[in-house]
Amino acid sequence: MSEAISINPIKLVAVAGGTHGNEMSGVTLVRHWLRDSTELVRETFTAVPLLANPKATEKCMRYYEKDLNRCFTMDILFSSESEDEPYEVKRAREINRVFGPRGSLNAYDLILDLHNTTCNMGVCLIISGTHKHLELHACHYIQTHLPNFNPQIYVYTEHGSELYDLPSVGKAGISFELGPQPQGVIRGDILQNMKKLVKSTLDFINQLNQAIEIPAFQVDVFQRVGHVQFPLSPDGEISAVVHPSLQDKDYSILHPGDPAFLSLDNKIIPYTGEQPIYPVFINEAAYYEKNIAFIVTKKIQVSVPPLSSTKGKSAL
Amino acid sequence: MSEAISINPIKLVAVAGGTHGNEMSGVTLVRHWLRDSTELVRETFTAVPLLANPKATEKCMRYYEKDLNRCFTMDILFSSESEDEPYEVKRAREINRVFGPRGSLNAYDLILDLHNTTCNMGVCLIISGTHKHLELHACHYIQTHLPNFNPQIYVYTEHGSELYDLPSVGKAGISFELGPQPQGVIRGDILQNMKKLVKSTLDFINQLNQAIEIPAFQVDVFQRVGHVQFPLSPDGEISAVVHPSLQDKDYSILHPGDPAFLSLDNKIIPYTGEQPIYPVFINEAAYYEKNIAFIVTKKIQVSVPPLSSTKGKSAL
Repeated sequence: MSEAISINPIKLVAVAGGTHGNEMSGVTLVRHWLRDSTELVRETFTAVPLLANPKATEKCMRYYEKDLNRCFTMDILFSSESEDEPYEVKRAREINRVFGPRGSLNAYDLILDLHNTTCNMGVCLIISGTHKHLELHACHYIQTHLPNFNPQIYVYTEHGSELYDLPSVGKAGISFELGPQPQGVIRGDILQNMKKLVKSTLDFINQLNQAIEIPAFQVDVFQRVGHVQFPLSPDGEISAVVHPSLQDKDYSILHPGDPAFLSLDNKIIPYTGEQPIYPVFINEAAYYEKNIAFIVTKKIQVSVPPLSSTKGKSAL
Repeated sequence: MSEAISINPIKLVAVAGGTHGNEMSGVTLVRHWLRDSTELVRETFTAVPLLANPKATEKCMRYYEKDLNRCFTMDILFSSESEDEPYEVKRAREINRVFGPRGSLNAYDLILDLHNTTCNMGVCLIISGTHKHLELHACHYIQTHLPNFNPQIYVYTEHGSELYDLPSVGKAGISFELGPQPQGVIRGDILQNMKKLVKSTLDFINQLNQAIEIPAFQVDVFQRVGHVQFPLSPDGEISAVVHPSLQDKDYSILHPGDPAFLSLDNKIIPYTGEQPIYPVFINEAAYYEKNIAFIVTKKIQVSVPPLSSTKGKSAL
């Protein structure tokens, strides 16, 4: 039995949308909550909506000059401003000042960030590492309370590697990635699901703040280990598309030799890795600019210790 | 029995893609055919690929300054150039010079234009009027030869109203609209279907050119009669989304009183028209800029007379 983790009560939560300006569930919900934030109200903490990238949101583009969700690096956050740098670099520092600074006592206790993907990812809960106990408990609560969503946990970076996403500004952070939804479209079903996810997470925090000890558990997560690029022609254009048998099969095992791509002249190109993998973000619109066809993960089991809130006592 | 329509043999066909630069089936196929056009070769006519909007395609955007597929009006096509006009206005005239001029003997005999939609439109064949016999015969051939695609015919304008799309530059024209596919994504299955549609159409033209008389038939088409906009808040933002029960139900009947929208505070907003309608293009990403939630059609039956090629004899 591992020892219980005790954390300070959660006082400040931010719910961000429009970090990518064309992912419409978060954009729509945050705009709604900026007019009427009733749905975010709980007894034990304050939750505020954050429209993360207003300029990209207004234009309904992923970003204006640079992907905001790659701008939360130490390098950017703690360097001084210069005039000609991209809008998102400035915006990342601004968000860090208000909702961080990262690593400081003043940082928000939890930041949720609402995303959509064009991939068949269903309900994906994204965290930055397998050591993030609060986040894993929140994810497990969601998995238990919204079993119909079949939520999966994706760990976007290996322990120790650099963080760069918006939630990393807070003491804890989770991104919700819902799909498939085309860029620029608001699907009613996905909007409703996103609302339920946020509700469930806020409910969890509310319970945790009341010093209930939450038991240990084991859970499967998909740990990012790399990515696979599209085959390119000599002139740099995509020469093969994701094979129809792989399309929409996010989280399913892909064995070496299985079809991965279909060339424009109808030849099957197999996956050539040495080990079976679990591809995710298969054929994401936003990754074409980097020629990324899918993200490679391994499925691992994580043991998560019990968690409780100190309810005012000092944290471990 | 209506009298057979006799037309001149088809000599010149253009297959356009990238009229909207982020609709990737056409972009990908036309780029492929520009390198190797073997798939377009038939004995009785010449077919050429056309990358319609190179600037938008390069940026993977619908358009660069103005929607190219609304630029083929008489006003634009036959006015003189001025320096500060949008890129697409110039490009429309250029395409009209090479593949038209519209209404002239020099115009291409047939222009196919390859599109994608984010809506659940399946395989949609778009023509400009119920009097377009060659197009209706081509559509019927496709429906007969590719029954698994369950292709539907959509008439985008009422007889006599102004044309504005790229295919209108040719003597005849059809747009293929395949979905659902997110903007900026190439789905392998939809790419394969688009290829089969083009193949089937070229095969039909090849048969027609051999003076085979094609019998009369009756067919259902969806005739555009209007559109419905999203409910807006006083500040002009969308205040309700397409109701989940209407989402993805393109071509299905919608009765007055049926749920049409769901407001952000969870109220059902019914369809308030006086007659049942057949909505299409439900929740298309590209129509958000005009706040269009869906297109309204009525379903009508069209009687199409027999068709044959004069094989060199003069046309009616």
